[in-house]
Amino acid sequence: MRGAVLHGKGDVRVEARDRPTLVEPTDAIIRVSAACVCGSDLWPYRGADSYDEPVGMGHEYVGVVEEVGDAVTGIAPGHCVVGSFFASDNTCEICRTGYQASCVHRQPVAGAQAEYLRVPLADGTLVATPGPPGADLLPSLLTASDVLGTGWFGAVAAQVGPGKTVAVVGDGAVGLLGVLAAQQLGAERIIAMSRHESRQEVAREFGATEIVVERGEDGVAKVKELTDGLGAHSVIEAVGTQESMMQAIRSARPGGHVGYVGVSHEVSLPGQELFFSHVHLHGGPAPVRQFLPELIDLIWRRQIDPGKVFDLVLPLEDAAEGYRAMDERRAIKALLWP
Amino acid sequence: MRGAVLHGKGDVRVEARDRPTLVEPTDAIIRVSAACVCGSDLWPYRGADSYDEPVGMGHEYVGVVEEVGDAVTGIAPGHCVVGSFFASDNTCEICRTGYQASCVHRQPVAGAQAEYLRVPLADGTLVATPGPPGADLLPSLLTASDVLGTGWFGAVAAQVGPGKTVAVVGDGAVGLLGVLAAQQLGAERIIAMSRHESRQEVAREFGATEIVVERGEDGVAKVKELTDGLGAHSVIEAVGTQESMMQAIRSARPGGHVGYVGVSHEVSLPGQELFFSHVHLHGGPAPVRQFLPELIDLIWRRQIDPGKVFDLVLPLEDAAEGYRAMDERRAIKALLWP
Repeated sequence: MRGAVLHGKGDVRVEARDRPTLVEPTDAIIRVSAACVCGSDLWPYRGADSYDEPVGMGHEYVGVVEEVGDAVTGIAPGHCVVGSFFASDNTCEICRTGYQASCVHRQPVAGAQAEYLRVPLADGTLVATPGPPGADLLPSLLTASDVLGTGWFGAVAAQVGPGKTVAVVGDGAVGLLGVLAAQQLGAERIIAMSRHESRQEVAREFGATEIVVERGEDGVAKVKELTDGLGAHSVIEAVGTQESMMQAIRSARPGGHVGYVGVSHEVSLPGQELFFSHVHLHGGPAPVRQFLPELIDLIWRRQIDPGKVFDLVLPLEDAAEGYRAMDERRAIKALLWP
Repeated sequence: MRGAVLHGKGDVRVEARDRPTLVEPTDAIIRVSAACVCGSDLWPYRGADSYDEPVGMGHEYVGVVEEVGDAVTGIAPGHCVVGSFFASDNTCEICRTGYQASCVHRQPVAGAQAEYLRVPLADGTLVATPGPPGADLLPSLLTASDVLGTGWFGAVAAQVGPGKTVAVVGDGAVGLLGVLAAQQLGAERIIAMSRHESRQEVAREFGATEIVVERGEDGVAKVKELTDGLGAHSVIEAVGTQESMMQAIRSARPGGHVGYVGVSHEVSLPGQELFFSHVHLHGGPAPVRQFLPELIDLIWRRQIDPGKVFDLVLPLEDAAEGYRAMDERRAIKALLWP
């Protein structure tokens, strides 16, 4: 089969790979219907993480079950399924509290930018759609696998709800879907922080009521100005840098909540400032599995259209161009058709 | 009047000071019935903070109202009152959500280790007891002013509740009263982390069900061992150092809550570890005013006896010995009678 492989900094190639096979009786093999490039894929692409050997890329997927192991009972060949980037048993004590991305048996799912994918712990990880989806629903279902689930978790972690003013730091696909999540969760005002017109437009479509183009301290000052000097009730952080984390923390009012879902890279939080900020801080890798049934339902009933974040659609063979376009911020998010 | 003044590192003197007078119409002057030395007083005492001139010490107090400004309507001369170390209007938007220690008009209360004390924003800050308290209740009422309120906030911030396993990092007065708060809030198991026998004893009296003597990574391993490898649901951090914060974060399970109330000194939190820990982090200066009515009620009805943390009782004149004894950890907490 064909699959995308990272060979080194900036070097993604689609090449022949072994088709995955069942390893554990709890595995499933799926035929990938659609995959995509994640903002977090850009970190290794830019050389932030180092690998000893070429690595199969991609962890977002919607697909059709091809084969299941003997121990799999909840899904069957032919089902259209969506799953998270972390496989989880969905039965351990941590999973039962909704933190499937920290399941005691969690395993990363990797190599989704390919024709076929092995998903461990299939019963706990995969959620089937109510039936075979129309092709037009595939992009939105694909977002549920990570980027929508992650934006959603950011909003939940930031305790977004009715009457709340929400600020969103980051205008990548996660930030934009954080806006959509905030709107769905009933936020009163949603301040999207973005200086890119095309992204501002998507933010508005997803429910942003205000746009702040300033960044860093100026961005914080602007959010304060819009909130009687107090700051937002809820802030979704969707970048993962020192600047964005501090911008998020400083944009929240005392007693407010910061939900951070941008994968932290070289972030160090000053204890004393955090202490006196009185904010709540929560985040981490999104427990997408917790939200999948609800998100699939919203998509299936066409209540939300998160697939709009894909402004670049390519055949899998052109994955390298998807990476380049996202790296150069020419595209918000690239969808790959295997 | 007489009052305790810090002249420099390790140099606390009780000397003649000007008796405070009403400055604002919202002020009250109280005659201090009892004051005490706070763990946070030890930071400047040890030279961690620098001051240009001698500074009146103390911010914990129970006393009798002597005089009130023209704008004060809720309390009157003769009332026995307890207040927080931050004066608050208790009416602003931040106060109304329970974060009075971040009131938009907050002012520090300082100089409580003295015969008289000026309390700004008296209506918003002071809570009167139901009547004149017996002398035996004064120590417990005094704790409500800070150390009990702070331990309580730690427990609330750590989302302590029925069915939860709680770990408490720090066996100072705040940590011990965090144990008491956890017990009152219905925790199922309370793991006190302490290597001092006398403090372990108080912890057990306050409701600790287990004692862990190990610290740092060994302490974390022990908490994990006691919790099926998962970590505690709730961790109260009551020290404020890098080691104690990391011990607290690492002792919590994914999805668990860390309530940190030890004033942070030179703490820097690694973003990536925090991200993958999946813990909730909340804390800061305790909004004592939020809890005062409930705490005074519990004390008044003799449901709790937090005054037990005072294992050294001195006349105000001997304040210096109180600081020394706490600095050398000979005493948990020193009460000062003016």
